[in-house]
Amino acid sequence: MIEIMIDLQGGAKAPLYEKIYEYIKNEIVEGRISTGEKLPSTRLLAGNLAVSRSTVEMAYDQLLAEGYIEAKPCRGFFVCDVAQLYRLKPVHIKSRASEERCREEACEVDFSPYAIDTRSFPYNIWRKISRNVLMDDNEELLFAGDGQGEYGLRREIADYLHQARGVNCNPSDVILGAGNEYLEILLTQMLGKKRTILMENPGYPQAYRTFCNMGYRVKTVAAAEQGLNVKTVRDIAPELVYIMPSHQFPIGSIMPLKARLELLAWAAEKEERYLIEDDHDSEYRYRGKPIPSLQSVDAQGKVIYLGTFSKSIAPSLRISYMVMPPQLVRCYRENCGFYSTTVPRMQQEILKEFIRNGHFERHLNKMRGIYRSRHDFLLGELKKRSWVRKVSGDHAGLHVLVEVDTPLTEEEFCQNVRKRGVAVSGLKEYELERVQTGTEAALGSAYAGSKTAADSICGGKERSFPTLLLGYGKLNEREIEKGLRVLDAVCEGR
Amino acid sequence: MIEIMIDLQGGAKAPLYEKIYEYIKNEIVEGRISTGEKLPSTRLLAGNLAVSRSTVEMAYDQLLAEGYIEAKPCRGFFVCDVAQLYRLKPVHIKSRASEERCREEACEVDFSPYAIDTRSFPYNIWRKISRNVLMDDNEELLFAGDGQGEYGLRREIADYLHQARGVNCNPSDVILGAGNEYLEILLTQMLGKKRTILMENPGYPQAYRTFCNMGYRVKTVAAAEQGLNVKTVRDIAPELVYIMPSHQFPIGSIMPLKARLELLAWAAEKEERYLIEDDHDSEYRYRGKPIPSLQSVDAQGKVIYLGTFSKSIAPSLRISYMVMPPQLVRCYRENCGFYSTTVPRMQQEILKEFIRNGHFERHLNKMRGIYRSRHDFLLGELKKRSWVRKVSGDHAGLHVLVEVDTPLTEEEFCQNVRKRGVAVSGLKEYELERVQTGTEAALGSAYAGSKTAADSICGGKERSFPTLLLGYGKLNEREIEKGLRVLDAVCEGR
Repeated sequence: MIEIMIDLQGGAKAPLYEKIYEYIKNEIVEGRISTGEKLPSTRLLAGNLAVSRSTVEMAYDQLLAEGYIEAKPCRGFFVCDVAQLYRLKPVHIKSRASEERCREEACEVDFSPYAIDTRSFPYNIWRKISRNVLMDDNEELLFAGDGQGEYGLRREIADYLHQARGVNCNPSDVILGAGNEYLEILLTQMLGKKRTILMENPGYPQAYRTFCNMGYRVKTVAAAEQGLNVKTVRDIAPELVYIMPSHQFPIGSIMPLKARLELLAWAAEKEERYLIEDDHDSEYRYRGKPIPSLQSVDAQGKVIYLGTFSKSIAPSLRISYMVMPPQLVRCYRENCGFYSTTVPRMQQEILKEFIRNGHFERHLNKMRGIYRSRHDFLLGELKKRSWVRKVSGDHAGLHVLVEVDTPLTEEEFCQNVRKRGVAVSGLKEYELERVQTGTEAALGSAYAGSKTAADSICGGKERSFPTLLLGYGKLNEREIEKGLRVLDAVCEGR
Repeated sequence: MIEIMIDLQGGAKAPLYEKIYEYIKNEIVEGRISTGEKLPSTRLLAGNLAVSRSTVEMAYDQLLAEGYIEAKPCRGFFVCDVAQLYRLKPVHIKSRASEERCREEACEVDFSPYAIDTRSFPYNIWRKISRNVLMDDNEELLFAGDGQGEYGLRREIADYLHQARGVNCNPSDVILGAGNEYLEILLTQMLGKKRTILMENPGYPQAYRTFCNMGYRVKTVAAAEQGLNVKTVRDIAPELVYIMPSHQFPIGSIMPLKARLELLAWAAEKEERYLIEDDHDSEYRYRGKPIPSLQSVDAQGKVIYLGTFSKSIAPSLRISYMVMPPQLVRCYRENCGFYSTTVPRMQQEILKEFIRNGHFERHLNKMRGIYRSRHDFLLGELKKRSWVRKVSGDHAGLHVLVEVDTPLTEEEFCQNVRKRGVAVSGLKEYELERVQTGTEAALGSAYAGSKTAADSICGGKERSFPTLLLGYGKLNEREIEKGLRVLDAVCEGR
């Protein structure tokens, strides 16, 4: 039998049993105690180390559980063959030259239209709910769960959408997924055959590329202030139309009720036609009454409604939802019912509690106040600037469009601004053709021809002035001012 | 100005300011205090309610932040128009008749091969790490983050795979995703064109259906004890081969090194050929040395390696990883670089800490001890049974295959067992043709002909005996015994 002497005074702060466990484990792993050797009895070792016997027993239990030692009845504890045990040490493989981490360019002020105010995130409440959810040692939380998302959370989302957006749905119509793109991928599988889809340009490049990747024929039409025209839709003759009727991204237009009803009537004419309503930032509207969703006026089950918590809670949460007409729910079960959910169950549980206990309502109201005051401040500041030709897309969402009086091209202008530590994007970056790849490119611009979205917004064939997207989600007044002063300087050629 | 009297003694336990806030909010929402009315000053209300002034100030601050009241300088607090504010009440829409929640059948003993031992989940450690991760009020955690997954977690996974599975990779080769199926969907997009893929039958129906849904031509070949034969692969001539060389699911065979090398040589012959290695439950091996991954002997960059934390931590975690050869990393960036990650950043951070601080290593060793003793107990019990014709697929993973001596068909047998409260699945449920839909069915069985996997395992053309999958992941000895007694009864026709 071996003798074990451990220095229990020195080293890092840790419980005594932990120190004994670590010491013996290392001795075994390093081969200083060999396979088959007998360890001292718990009574003997406790006496030698001057600790209680239960302390040694805890250390031995841990070693037993992890397979370093085994207990032989009436004989004692013996060291196991540990060749098969996991021993993970941080031994980083030499990096390839190309491996450098991609870092985002550091910038002092970020006018990104996707950014939110992370400083107002309810950390305390989130932490408290997380703790409670985990506190119950709830086994259920570890099971794979419902592929569509947990019923309880779907119920909360259905209630929220009904009250806030007029959406008519039951929890069974709601599918949760890790982001809008994932839900769009599911949707293409529900629908089965490859379809032709019409999108407004500019728009969300991610949605555009997702449908391209899924083998869809994606056609585009210039986004207009007055919303999508049903005549255009009839000319292009797609099966699906992807729209953002309450707040088109990025131009910010609102589709009038008449255009909505015409579009719904068009969709109702044929079984395979559907409208995909992306209601991405409907939470934030600062003037006038909230605009109900397109889904709320759909009596025929032709609208597929998409939404996300990325803007209302946090982009990193990765929880989106899709509300489907009943006939598509059946397609979902047939074609996609075998998929596990992409949203971790603990996150679902936390979000459910967050909504159910009223925190989501309070958070939304608070954030709307914050964003409205930033929106108002930004508009006030823009009014003072002579280089501002036009402001549009305001009164909602988290960004406005600004047409700039400058001899520079949009690209030059944005680059110039970025060099000075301010991140800003131009409208062109959201033109779908630019992000198009492969054979779809030819199809994509078939109808729209050479008429780009920016043409339509600037109202002329030759677009001579850059249009910027100024997002204010994560910027306080001081930062907005600082960013605008950099734009001032670039406009003045300083 | 209105007068406000609140009963601060009664009602639920809550901070005083919260009660004042709730009371005034409700008065406003219910219309009992109208838009434009002036609230009492904080001093006055504090006096009336006999609370401190700061308590009233906190309540007013909350009402201000959420937009119920506004402050007019030198004049006081006034009620806002709250028509636009969110007011979410639980008003459940009447359920459709069809809406009933799908519940899994209740069962006393579940022999599912997918189940894990949830009772041993390290709740305390997970809770502690969660709290620490959220404690820092770390804004970074709310940003969308790296689409491939956070670098820190990819580094930990690369190190783990190198040490535990011999996988040669850098963090830049690792992509995280919410489940294997999502990663397979990404993979089809990286590869671009629709491919022909060969899979062993029986296998994972989810993987099979995913590739079918993505428009792949999926061909199948009967899984054999000695692994996939390269001659068969040459005959079928796919571009991709999907295999589980270390532990084929569900039959449990191990592919010999010779077969592995031949397959790698086949793949190296043409650029478009790849082997997809699904290393799903390699963590648990109870006899002999661990078997290194196929990827570890691949010198040509022909293996795409897939793994998951579903079995080693929990199915509900929804974190899988894919290790790609460098040339496919480039394809990923081009075709899929625009996707946001599907794994929430907080979960990534928690898992990173779990691995980095040694908890994953300890958890794996502990679980292997638990599963090994269950495995040994189950095998011992099976040996005693005369109705057991053959046991296979043992010594690894979380289930064994048992061929049963009974006049019943597999389906009848399983149904009979389920009726008695024991969930069990037959080998046939994992036959890929059975889950096949649409036009692929004809292609799928083109090579394998009428020879099913079960034929191959039972070694005859006529399969006369049911083969069960007995998973022991979530069952203790008492439960295993209980389940086996039900099988005894069904075998004996009781």
